Amino acid sequence: MNAMTRVAIGIEYDGSHFHGWQLQPALETIQGALERAVAEIAGERVAVIAAGRTDAGVHALEQVAHFDTNASRPLQAWIRGVNRHLPPAVAVRWAVPVEPAFHARFSAISRRYRYVLFNHPVRPALHGGRVGWYHRMLNVDRMSLAAQYLIGEHDFSSFRSSECQARSPVKTLHEVNIRRHGDYVLFDFRAGGFLHHMVRNIIGSLLWVGYGKVLPEAFAELLAARGRTLAAPTFAPDGLYFAGAEYAEHWRLPLSGRIMTPFDPVQP
Amino acid sequence: MNAMTRVAIGIEYDGSHFHGWQLQPALETIQGALERAVAEIAGERVAVIAAGRTDAGVHALEQVAHFDTNASRPLQAWIRGVNRHLPPAVAVRWAVPVEPAFHARFSAISRRYRYVLFNHPVRPALHGGRVGWYHRMLNVDRMSLAAQYLIGEHDFSSFRSSECQARSPVKTLHEVNIRRHGDYVLFDFRAGGFLHHMVRNIIGSLLWVGYGKVLPEAFAELLAARGRTLAAPTFAPDGLYFAGAEYAEHWRLPLSGRIMTPFDPVQP
Repeated sequence: MNAMTRVAIGIEYDGSHFHGWQLQPALETIQGALERAVAEIAGERVAVIAAGRTDAGVHALEQVAHFDTNASRPLQAWIRGVNRHLPPAVAVRWAVPVEPAFHARFSAISRRYRYVLFNHPVRPALHGGRVGWYHRMLNVDRMSLAAQYLIGEHDFSSFRSSECQARSPVKTLHEVNIRRHGDYVLFDFRAGGFLHHMVRNIIGSLLWVGYGKVLPEAFAELLAARGRTLAAPTFAPDGLYFAGAEYAEHWRLPLSGRIMTPFDPVQP
Repeated sequence: MNAMTRVAIGIEYDGSHFHGWQLQPALETIQGALERAVAEIAGERVAVIAAGRTDAGVHALEQVAHFDTNASRPLQAWIRGVNRHLPPAVAVRWAVPVEPAFHARFSAISRRYRYVLFNHPVRPALHGGRVGWYHRMLNVDRMSLAAQYLIGEHDFSSFRSSECQARSPVKTLHEVNIRRHGDYVLFDFRAGGFLHHMVRNIIGSLLWVGYGKVLPEAFAELLAARGRTLAAPTFAPDGLYFAGAEYAEHWRLPLSGRIMTPFDPVQP
């Protein structure tokens, strides 16, 4: 009899045509596709648990997950073997055995999301579904100023979906970084955890600031309202990426820190 | 009665789900989608003529085209109006009236193609269909050395598809530039014109050089063979982009030179 092994994996996906991460009967989800593909290699049913349960239409640069199996396989089987059974829009990028105490969700210290916005009068074509689009010219300095009010521990009810199942609306936002690259604006967020629709709701309100409908200083009131009444509607999922999770060093995960993608600004 | 106007347009598209540029009965093509969308705005049938007739699965950062119409419309109608009638994977980015002597195909001085290759042991997911993939590590210096043999006027029969309808296999390649950005390798080509499958056939052979199967110097013989016998098979269309065309200044086209896309290396 084999001993049980816990395996951690890094996953990349285009969530455009999936009903989010979480398993749903009769609907195609990332978790569902992964559990089927891993089962093909393991020869047994497995449950795959992720650091961040992304919504419908949301993508991942580096989702982290784990599963337990009685099967003993070379690591490449959990990467290339599993990839052969996954749809083209999902791929396992790395796999490592981890201590049984590791938990992709509960061991995560913080999580990162990136929003990629195409800021141009004309809608995107090449990256449709993988970038958000806003037609009015946005001022990045004003949005950055507004975003500073969000940093720290706050009651984020103003940016919380009514369907959010978190026990508390209090979250700690460690970092927000907003940069322009030509026609693109990149929004990077790092927090202990995120409420349901939190990033998309924040983006919606930041765009109000970006085109001048709302002053950066008004973000303080918006947050203090602790309700959805003052904040903007939820923005499109298209440009939203789960960008990674941080774990303690001792778990020795081969995290990319940030996967190099065409959406990363790189030095020539 | 209105005078006839010739309109030039810049077009961006994800060619993954199209049967190439050229109109085909009963198959979805870029030209077909554009002619239907422009006709909706013009209120009459139009023929749309492009600088480069891209193959099935090939994309465009900036395709240039023109059409003639008796309709008089504000320029925004040829951009946003037409875009409302186009599938999400195609968009008109700019439109300008041009002199009747302008011809998108025959007035073009040169054309550019870019190949975006994901060079990683594990297949792509997020950019599947929009990047080529090669699993073996590639040496960019060796490929650049080999590519120098192609520059200038040559008989490119070694890299010509058997279905090519060009009158002559002689073309002038002005520039080849190959660069690595993390896990991506970008190949940029500029030529007066290209033969059918020319870029994809050159890429296939450059990969042989890149992983060490063939010496850079062997590219001279490969080219001199003037037949497909020595060269590598045609590489996948997935990472191929029509990147733009050059025209004389006096036509006053609002060419982007290079559209800023996430596949462009940018300075932070």
